[in-house]
Amino acid sequence: MNVELIIIASEILNGKILDLNTQWLAQFLLKNGIKLKLVTTIEDDPNEMYSAFKNAYERSDTVITSGGLGPTKDDLTKNIFSKFFNLKISRSQMAYDVVLKNYERFNREFIEEKSDYANVPELAVVYNNPSGMAPGLSYFLNQKYFAILPGVPNEFQSMFEFEIFPHIQKLFFKQNKFYKLVTVKTKMLPESKIFSEIALGLWEKLEGYGQVSSLPHILGVDIGVQISADSESELKNKEEDVLNTILMTPLKNHIWHIGNLSLEEVIIKEATEKKITIGTAESCTGGLVSSRLTNISNSSAVFIGGIVSYSNQLKITLLNVLDTTLNKFGAVSKETVMEMSSGAKEKLGVNIAISLSGIAGPTGGTKEKPVGTLCLGWISKDNQPKAETFNLAGDRVKLKERFSQIALYKLLEEIRNY
Amino acid sequence: MNVELIIIASEILNGKILDLNTQWLAQFLLKNGIKLKLVTTIEDDPNEMYSAFKNAYERSDTVITSGGLGPTKDDLTKNIFSKFFNLKISRSQMAYDVVLKNYERFNREFIEEKSDYANVPELAVVYNNPSGMAPGLSYFLNQKYFAILPGVPNEFQSMFEFEIFPHIQKLFFKQNKFYKLVTVKTKMLPESKIFSEIALGLWEKLEGYGQVSSLPHILGVDIGVQISADSESELKNKEEDVLNTILMTPLKNHIWHIGNLSLEEVIIKEATEKKITIGTAESCTGGLVSSRLTNISNSSAVFIGGIVSYSNQLKITLLNVLDTTLNKFGAVSKETVMEMSSGAKEKLGVNIAISLSGIAGPTGGTKEKPVGTLCLGWISKDNQPKAETFNLAGDRVKLKERFSQIALYKLLEEIRNY
Repeated sequence: MNVELIIIASEILNGKILDLNTQWLAQFLLKNGIKLKLVTTIEDDPNEMYSAFKNAYERSDTVITSGGLGPTKDDLTKNIFSKFFNLKISRSQMAYDVVLKNYERFNREFIEEKSDYANVPELAVVYNNPSGMAPGLSYFLNQKYFAILPGVPNEFQSMFEFEIFPHIQKLFFKQNKFYKLVTVKTKMLPESKIFSEIALGLWEKLEGYGQVSSLPHILGVDIGVQISADSESELKNKEEDVLNTILMTPLKNHIWHIGNLSLEEVIIKEATEKKITIGTAESCTGGLVSSRLTNISNSSAVFIGGIVSYSNQLKITLLNVLDTTLNKFGAVSKETVMEMSSGAKEKLGVNIAISLSGIAGPTGGTKEKPVGTLCLGWISKDNQPKAETFNLAGDRVKLKERFSQIALYKLLEEIRNY
Repeated sequence: MNVELIIIASEILNGKILDLNTQWLAQFLLKNGIKLKLVTTIEDDPNEMYSAFKNAYERSDTVITSGGLGPTKDDLTKNIFSKFFNLKISRSQMAYDVVLKNYERFNREFIEEKSDYANVPELAVVYNNPSGMAPGLSYFLNQKYFAILPGVPNEFQSMFEFEIFPHIQKLFFKQNKFYKLVTVKTKMLPESKIFSEIALGLWEKLEGYGQVSSLPHILGVDIGVQISADSESELKNKEEDVLNTILMTPLKNHIWHIGNLSLEEVIIKEATEKKITIGTAESCTGGLVSSRLTNISNSSAVFIGGIVSYSNQLKITLLNVLDTTLNKFGAVSKETVMEMSSGAKEKLGVNIAISLSGIAGPTGGTKEKPVGTLCLGWISKDNQPKAETFNLAGDRVKLKERFSQIALYKLLEEIRNY
């Protein structure tokens, strides 16, 4: 089964906004063993829309559109959709109910006279919008499925995941099946080596269980296997088999999470469960590590704070790094980051502190310590500071990202060892 | 003149990477008065490519493709391009020279027998790749232009800007013209109100000088006018006229930059010029403000450091906030952020300190201080802490972004007032 996406958005074609729906849909479909075949981005223009609808419907069996479902006069998708399938638009009680509920949810009054939302093409299926107002619509004819969705990413994504996808499954997939995406997240291995060197033959073995996917992130790769079964117990067994197959390979030592949480989420979750407080001392990353941790709701339960000691002077005054250490070994050294983490632990009053000092470039590199050098320090229960040096590639912003990722991997390890 | 883009990238359709070229190209074209009409994203598949080339060439007079120009066997663009225009591929001295220079630039040895780069379709124009290896190619026939470029964003963008665009200008635009994009960056005004309420009629007036564009960013809008003239002095006069036209409106008070630098770049540049040191005390943004400042190369000349006082305890111990202030007014209060900025100025030893405390949500909001409340504090030359309260909308990560943007706007103001 192939899916084609039509993005109706003048604001993408004039560069005002970045399209985020393609990547989300591609990843969601891939996890479920479905291919996103082609994406067309067009203006909010009736002729462009009709012609894109026609081309897509001719060559694909599933067409999804995003955008143009709002209440203003440049929102034309519903009209072109009904014209394309030759469906009459009339008032629908179901669409009315969906919209009314959404307005109530957002504490807003729905005045039907002022809105076109309750009028939909006859015979079209009406979908709820879990994150907004406008309902979605679809039409199924000659084994071909065509659905129109809103373009705002959280509306598009939640409607696709919770309304459209279950419907597609019913239409195209075998009934009474149980599905699960088994995800294993690895770190510090290049995607190119995982299946060709480290775990040779693993991809082929996993394919025996279901569609396999591999998604690279910052210094890590997520491996997914979409499994299905006729009963929940069979699904459970299959999941165990998949995990055992992976855990029998050398990949085992590089897995940091089995499931679908982000690194920051896993850190905050496990630190909260174990009641471990954490703090940071950052130089080269300039606060990026603490900013990433505080992106997680309720991180304040365990993240106490951090010190961004960008100047050497602050490393001395705020983190008790010795002047002699800085002079003898330099700011980017294991010795300095060990003193930084000790100082942070004491000044912040935390259980685990991590510290970073490195060269994000583009200037400041030397032959011994080139751009991309990171010294990472940490201190935990035993009060013995430890440190490690890394060498990475990238421009300044990319290096800051990679440095912060390494620090978070280490932090998670230390929480687990606590 | 309309441009159509074909993105050849299986890795975008399986969600591995996010397409960044569309937005860049759209913005670049818009600034130059050209419209990006349609974008098609397809797999690295010969049939899909041929069919996309055909459709695009039929309906558009300028077609740009990205991707599939590398050295591996799934890089098919050059072959499909030559097949489509029925051009014979043969060795080109010009392509050879371009590639040889690129290999030398990256200190790599070019072995012609192992590479296909020097073989190109006869009659095609060969372009240098300012950021990579593979040359770009174009063919101009019956007043229609078709160019193939690499897909890697910095290669695509630099080749388009420095090689393709000047060529397009020569082919389609008037000769011996001078061009400039005049950009004015405004803050804290909604895009919808700028031209319809605050500066009514401005858009129409500016259109008298050239193509007008409006690009919204976080809590700000960049207004661009693409001007052209027959001489440099005429261009200079036109630029002054454009700026005077804008500065005569109430927009004047909301402009923070005339030019093309980012907010962080302007801050670091002006602070460096005036030798002003800066520091931060962050609660709700968790280090995002300091991280953004340190994204700029050589920021260490003026950015000394920051304290992320996420817990109340750290506000007391690291920033000298009074226990009584926290008890009486709460952590999110003007009183607290004023004490935070005073404490930061002293502890960090800086000329200007800014402090933030707010509610990024989704939990923690109250009726008096709902999610989205930001208390911003600052202290400068006169050593008198000041503060202001803001109310913003968005989810947790979006609110952190907006909070940090407001803090940086204020910081720039204070640098200018210093």
